[in-house]
Amino acid sequence: MKTLILAPGAVGVYFGGRLARSGAEVSVVARRDYDVASAHGYAVESIRGDFHFTPRRVLKSVAETDEVFDYVFVTAKAFADSVALLRGAVRSRETAIVLIQNGIGNEKAVKEAYPDNELISSVAYIGVSRPEPGKVLHQGSGILKMGVYPSGPITPKLRDLAAAFEKAGVECTLFEDIQRQRWDKLLWNISYNVVSVLAGGVDTQGMTKKTAAGKVCSALMDDLIAVANACGVALSRADAERQIEYNENFPAYKTSMLQDFEAHRPLEIEPILGNAMRLAREHAVFVPAIGLCYNLLIELDRKNTLKNA
Amino acid sequence: MKTLILAPGAVGVYFGGRLARSGAEVSVVARRDYDVASAHGYAVESIRGDFHFTPRRVLKSVAETDEVFDYVFVTAKAFADSVALLRGAVRSRETAIVLIQNGIGNEKAVKEAYPDNELISSVAYIGVSRPEPGKVLHQGSGILKMGVYPSGPITPKLRDLAAAFEKAGVECTLFEDIQRQRWDKLLWNISYNVVSVLAGGVDTQGMTKKTAAGKVCSALMDDLIAVANACGVALSRADAERQIEYNENFPAYKTSMLQDFEAHRPLEIEPILGNAMRLAREHAVFVPAIGLCYNLLIELDRKNTLKNA
Repeated sequence: MKTLILAPGAVGVYFGGRLARSGAEVSVVARRDYDVASAHGYAVESIRGDFHFTPRRVLKSVAETDEVFDYVFVTAKAFADSVALLRGAVRSRETAIVLIQNGIGNEKAVKEAYPDNELISSVAYIGVSRPEPGKVLHQGSGILKMGVYPSGPITPKLRDLAAAFEKAGVECTLFEDIQRQRWDKLLWNISYNVVSVLAGGVDTQGMTKKTAAGKVCSALMDDLIAVANACGVALSRADAERQIEYNENFPAYKTSMLQDFEAHRPLEIEPILGNAMRLAREHAVFVPAIGLCYNLLIELDRKNTLKNA
Repeated sequence: MKTLILAPGAVGVYFGGRLARSGAEVSVVARRDYDVASAHGYAVESIRGDFHFTPRRVLKSVAETDEVFDYVFVTAKAFADSVALLRGAVRSRETAIVLIQNGIGNEKAVKEAYPDNELISSVAYIGVSRPEPGKVLHQGSGILKMGVYPSGPITPKLRDLAAAFEKAGVECTLFEDIQRQRWDKLLWNISYNVVSVLAGGVDTQGMTKKTAAGKVCSALMDDLIAVANACGVALSRADAERQIEYNENFPAYKTSMLQDFEAHRPLEIEPILGNAMRLAREHAVFVPAIGLCYNLLIELDRKNTLKNA
């Protein structure tokens, strides 16, 4: 199983590393981590047991190899230009493209650029961070939900991939309607990720339903449910309650958006809030909480990323 | 005209100082500024010309004097316990109590404690700050709107006070329905004050209508108009547009709430948002923007004031 992970951050290293432990041949195109990763691979400190991930090859560019991959992974932040990332990496119709990203609406441009390739859409429930180059810290969960884009029966390629993940200890559930799962995950991202930043830097346990921050999370979820329903996605308040309960029982964790904010990296505003807002406008759904948080984040992000310049 | 200003901050020193220049005898009960003010008075650096304010007396406590005042001013932040501040200062039915504060619902407790005294309710449009003890910086506007609480014709005492302010160059407009003016001012406070903090520290020119922050301001104003209307106060979108235009043409200014936030002082959350929210609940008005910002500010304030402990 020849696999390539493009520009992996914490998520890409974690799942790539797991996949390698199943016996798959996993190479990476590294960016920021290139020097460390090519010399030493990646150290993964995990609640499930630490492990080391030595990629088959660490490339600076995909042009350094002529290998035909079975799977090419895009695990970059969802505001990244996935089509640009994929350029040169997809050399056969047999290559499946795997997206592991938050948000909705991310797959469209990739499908248009590679209409003949299988496109596997995934969301990850995982608490990982990258405290330093070449090192990944895995603190919570680690589940994958996958399906064929836009929807459809489980393909052999998808089944093989899931089997490899399961072999490496990654719980991997397959869905014929993966969009439903993307929206479901978005319930979490549009609330906890967003509020962790807007409330001045709170971890997930600072956003339980008893807190003022938790009330904002709940309002954001209600807005998203209204948009989902207008789009024909059967999300309901019961899904929100399940996410809330999940969060209550999950150990305190610093959300990925808060990690990005503190590192002065750009925030996933568009895939998480912007796309939902645009769909709301299209369907004439009133989403005051999403709209307000979107605008506040735009301001915070603009000022915050200046500090990284 | 014997006047006492209780625990003056920037607003109290500015208007007290102006009043003194009209010939009024103005004393203060000083707290943080006591040492500097009793030794040197207050230096007011003003866009209208710098001046010095030497109070007739600088008291540590109102118990140090047995004077009967014509006017006792409360200019403290609106979350302060005005009744506690006034204790011992109101020695006659002839003493008028003057509140210069933001927010709505502030007068009720004072009126209950001093039912026989005239209560003058005021809002100030002014850009002032207190860069250091004993010093006040006046950067914008400086207008007072005053009326008898809860409403009613202009009394002789109020007219005298206004005349003294006018003599000292303070534009002072009197209203038979001061509540309408309080709500009108609240349009500004509930938007620009709040968003200046939530958007990560922006000045007033960073919240013009073209900005993302300005859109949040507008949403907050719409919510407040709905509450006002439910309470029988004839606020309209035209009032919001007037506030927006006022802000567009006012020089860049750091709002009082942002000043408080940066100094790790508690924020005027309840008088500005909390009271409006409670009225909204009473009248079953949906105020998503106010509710959301209220909860975010509660979180920010809690963490921010810890740093002052």
